[in-house]
Amino acid sequence: MSYIPPLERMRFVIEQVLDAPASWRAMPDFAEVDADLAREVLEQAGRFAQDVIAPLNGPADLQGCTWQSGGTVKTPDGFPAAWRAFVEGGWPALPCAPEDGGQGLPQLLNAALFEMLVGANHAWTMYPGLLHGACEAIRHHAVPALRERYLPRVVSGEWLATMNLTEPQAGSDLGLSRTRCEPVDAAAPVANGAAVTVTGQKIFISGGDQDMTDNIVHLVLARLPGAPDGTKGLTLVLVPKILPDGRRNGAWCDGIEKKMGIKGSATAQMRFEQAEGWILGEPNAGLAAMFLMMNSARLHVGMQGLGHLEAATRIASAYAQERLQLRAPSRPAGSDAAAARGPDPIAWHPAMRRILLDLQARTEGARVIAYWTALLLDEAEHHPDAAVRAQRHDLVALLTPVVKAFLTHLGHHGANEALGVLGGHGYVHDWGIEQHVRDSRIALIYEGTNEIQAIDLLMRKVLDRPGRLALLLEVLRGEAGTLDTLAGTAADGDPAGLARWAALLRDEATTLERATATLQRERAARPDLPFLVADDYLHALGHTLLAWAWARLLRASLGDLDAARRQRLQALCAHGRDWLLPAARWRWTRIESGVPELAWPGL
Amino acid sequence: MSYIPPLERMRFVIEQVLDAPASWRAMPDFAEVDADLAREVLEQAGRFAQDVIAPLNGPADLQGCTWQSGGTVKTPDGFPAAWRAFVEGGWPALPCAPEDGGQGLPQLLNAALFEMLVGANHAWTMYPGLLHGACEAIRHHAVPALRERYLPRVVSGEWLATMNLTEPQAGSDLGLSRTRCEPVDAAAPVANGAAVTVTGQKIFISGGDQDMTDNIVHLVLARLPGAPDGTKGLTLVLVPKILPDGRRNGAWCDGIEKKMGIKGSATAQMRFEQAEGWILGEPNAGLAAMFLMMNSARLHVGMQGLGHLEAATRIASAYAQERLQLRAPSRPAGSDAAAARGPDPIAWHPAMRRILLDLQARTEGARVIAYWTALLLDEAEHHPDAAVRAQRHDLVALLTPVVKAFLTHLGHHGANEALGVLGGHGYVHDWGIEQHVRDSRIALIYEGTNEIQAIDLLMRKVLDRPGRLALLLEVLRGEAGTLDTLAGTAADGDPAGLARWAALLRDEATTLERATATLQRERAARPDLPFLVADDYLHALGHTLLAWAWARLLRASLGDLDAARRQRLQALCAHGRDWLLPAARWRWTRIESGVPELAWPGL
Repeated sequence: MSYIPPLERMRFVIEQVLDAPASWRAMPDFAEVDADLAREVLEQAGRFAQDVIAPLNGPADLQGCTWQSGGTVKTPDGFPAAWRAFVEGGWPALPCAPEDGGQGLPQLLNAALFEMLVGANHAWTMYPGLLHGACEAIRHHAVPALRERYLPRVVSGEWLATMNLTEPQAGSDLGLSRTRCEPVDAAAPVANGAAVTVTGQKIFISGGDQDMTDNIVHLVLARLPGAPDGTKGLTLVLVPKILPDGRRNGAWCDGIEKKMGIKGSATAQMRFEQAEGWILGEPNAGLAAMFLMMNSARLHVGMQGLGHLEAATRIASAYAQERLQLRAPSRPAGSDAAAARGPDPIAWHPAMRRILLDLQARTEGARVIAYWTALLLDEAEHHPDAAVRAQRHDLVALLTPVVKAFLTHLGHHGANEALGVLGGHGYVHDWGIEQHVRDSRIALIYEGTNEIQAIDLLMRKVLDRPGRLALLLEVLRGEAGTLDTLAGTAADGDPAGLARWAALLRDEATTLERATATLQRERAARPDLPFLVADDYLHALGHTLLAWAWARLLRASLGDLDAARRQRLQALCAHGRDWLLPAARWRWTRIESGVPELAWPGL
Repeated sequence: MSYIPPLERMRFVIEQVLDAPASWRAMPDFAEVDADLAREVLEQAGRFAQDVIAPLNGPADLQGCTWQSGGTVKTPDGFPAAWRAFVEGGWPALPCAPEDGGQGLPQLLNAALFEMLVGANHAWTMYPGLLHGACEAIRHHAVPALRERYLPRVVSGEWLATMNLTEPQAGSDLGLSRTRCEPVDAAAPVANGAAVTVTGQKIFISGGDQDMTDNIVHLVLARLPGAPDGTKGLTLVLVPKILPDGRRNGAWCDGIEKKMGIKGSATAQMRFEQAEGWILGEPNAGLAAMFLMMNSARLHVGMQGLGHLEAATRIASAYAQERLQLRAPSRPAGSDAAAARGPDPIAWHPAMRRILLDLQARTEGARVIAYWTALLLDEAEHHPDAAVRAQRHDLVALLTPVVKAFLTHLGHHGANEALGVLGGHGYVHDWGIEQHVRDSRIALIYEGTNEIQAIDLLMRKVLDRPGRLALLLEVLRGEAGTLDTLAGTAADGDPAGLARWAALLRDEATTLERATATLQRERAARPDLPFLVADDYLHALGHTLLAWAWARLLRASLGDLDAARRQRLQALCAHGRDWLLPAARWRWTRIESGVPELAWPGL
């Protein structure tokens, strides 16, 4: 099944729902970005996704990567050529700073680009997935000589970069890392830019080896002699596969993983043996340097969830319109009575209709949440007013774990529901939907597992910083106020039910505020209470954000939109409100009605 | 990761919870079955699952089946030898009638056997998966000559059998089948046993070809000349791969599917070209003949869900006890304070504890539901009292769609949650858990999709036959009465909280009754209402059954059980009550508080 970029819907969110062009106008860094440029970028990106990498997606899943003795990896057929096309198109540099050779475009457009790339081919998109983070780490932390040597080539995509964090015994707990680095010159001070050798083993390294670029820039967390235990003793080191003098460095790929999905992405076991490199940033401050771009990296993973959700929903919707099986208990108004004796499209059967509406409502709502967060991230970094930047940064920090965890959850489980629409045909490779299920699963795990996102959200972003939640409550209540005003001034008596949506958003805000206060109050006596319900809190908040997103979509649908699309959007918003929100309410109830004890499981 | 059969827990359900031996004693057909025999059978079955087929599971997933030109299929290494061992052990014939060469053992033991086989190797277990149904179809419908030629060899497992239903345009809607059959002798009456030729295409045929048996007995649904349209014009035909005179019959495997999972199971595209066969049963009554064993077949698929749930839960539980990452916010009583400075087992982290307790509570409860249904099925077929048989049959008919759909749902989604416990390690092949996720997915689809099960349950089993639900209400209230009596007579003042469980079961029964009455009442005005909420109804009823199962487990735990196991079981029952049941209540609420309209989705 081919990938079709949802350009019209993306544009609707960017222009009509969020009015991003107005935000861009307020930021001098984006003075040259407007709706036309954004459309042009998205159209070209959509063509690349649809024409270049989507056709490689299914075949690459069957072919996989091949590890070759000598420690090199062959990527699936077509991957290197697609990478060259991506580089020639200037895509790797999209969000990078112009002074580094980037295009300096907003993160919002980069997010939309990655939604399409992942929807078309997640495995291929793994290779450039870490580029932006690597660029920023080098840009901000490398000494000038190192920066000049590596940054332009990484920004242009001539070379790809990797992040080397995980070790067999150190996953979520990077403090357990054992990989060592030692200064080459024992007499020189150990400082940023110092030459070191790195020795140790890293696993789960995406793109640890590949045949798409001549060189690979590994960013490696390692421990200097005498460094403190735990995460405060980790130093970031830049280790190229090929050294400046052309020698092969001691960074070897010992094998690649057999995985559930993203089989075209080489997940390498890396062995660093006296590999030569240079310290990036301050010694022992490697974790912060590596996680400089944590918000954009996690937003990026959230976009993967959206990409899968969109693509899988489209496949299921198209299939359900074409596949004729059994007679439906009722038919849509205006359907051809003459054809009513034969089997009906399965999209008419209530069980399938419900799944399709669930998926479509979630897709449209999730896109608003994701793009909004990306826009806030742009404002957090580029707004001329420092107070606005600070406020946006706080809001982004709050939203990021929700976008990462909730959208990847929706993406994976949504793809799985979409598979069900195709029945047995969904279980076989041909339709591509079972691949969406497999490929999307990893996004719930990497870049901080969803369980860790939930704890990050509730503990660090909400309970420890009460002011942040107030920002979100303000957004919800502000939208309620806007809706009420519109409902009150409508000449035709609020047929879209804006006042009802306003009441709903106020109710969501009140519940959110009250449940949070309950946790804040009770955790003094039960310190591990927030850990018990962090997952509930994240999913409940995700649904509150969906409610807000549907309200925004509904409001935007009243503007310049053709009747069919308006009707569809309004139906999806109503479906989300009536079918999806009530199904999530029990999570708030659990938090408010007293969280039960949690036993210690046996084997 | 090896498979370990949960023998002790299976025995506990069979002997302590259900007291199956007492039921067997009441049935002359099972006069020789007792607890010792059952233990012996389960132990041997467990050894076969653990030692013979579990080691083949991971390698077979990587190797898959190979289609060879000429239309034959090579199964994964070790599959044919394991089949011979299975046949030599007499396993295929376990539940078949002794007069046909079977062992005549209860379905309950066969269900337990298949729980273990699927937990160890779902793909391999696909080959014998349809044997029992094929045996019964031949036994009840074949004319004597046909029966004598094929039944003993299928019962013994010398030959395997297939069910040929699906066609490209006919999946859930078998009435759209086009495969034709024509009498060989146009002059003779078209009757049971008549020789016919079959021509047409079938897809998704499990074991359509394989190299495990010398012959394959295909049961094919086909349409006689002039037969009515739809399902009332389908005739069942027995088509052997090799004809009695040794000729190769025109039943060709044109290819096999590339699938998400169960890769060691050959899912064949079959082409019948003037294939010779004989009518099985009455002409045009093929669907009923094919579905003779529908209840046991669907129970069997439910066991697949349980098998995956059990196996995946065990892997995750073991991993979580061994994997040390980060410090937990609290530690279990009595944990070593000296070791408290290092990282803790992830099983101690609340987010993981919650997943593990969810999985374990569901596993134990699901086993009670499944085994109980199997026991009722045995009574429906073998109880000497016709009234008991009829009552058990009604209860089985009600429970079967729940067991099929709810347990496969728990199995697949539970395996997926278990994967998350292993983080990145869960996503790679080595631990076997991602294979459980992939393999288990098909069970939600085949043998009637879960959406169709939900409609079958609510429409045909509940609303159209109100008496059936009364049987279940009686069970729930009966158990509540038993618990109350025990609570009232306990010398030590009901420390296990039996009275609370009694109240809970009464509450579940009341809600179930009331929600059903609501649907019964409102569907007159909204005929498609039940179709909208069938899925909610099934899952809500599934949780009601879990509540009953946990109450039964709790009651049994007060008997002869060591302290550690009693404590574990009681903790799991409490966890299910406090954490899982409230999360399902919204489904009843939706049904009772007015089901919203459902729009017609666009693309």
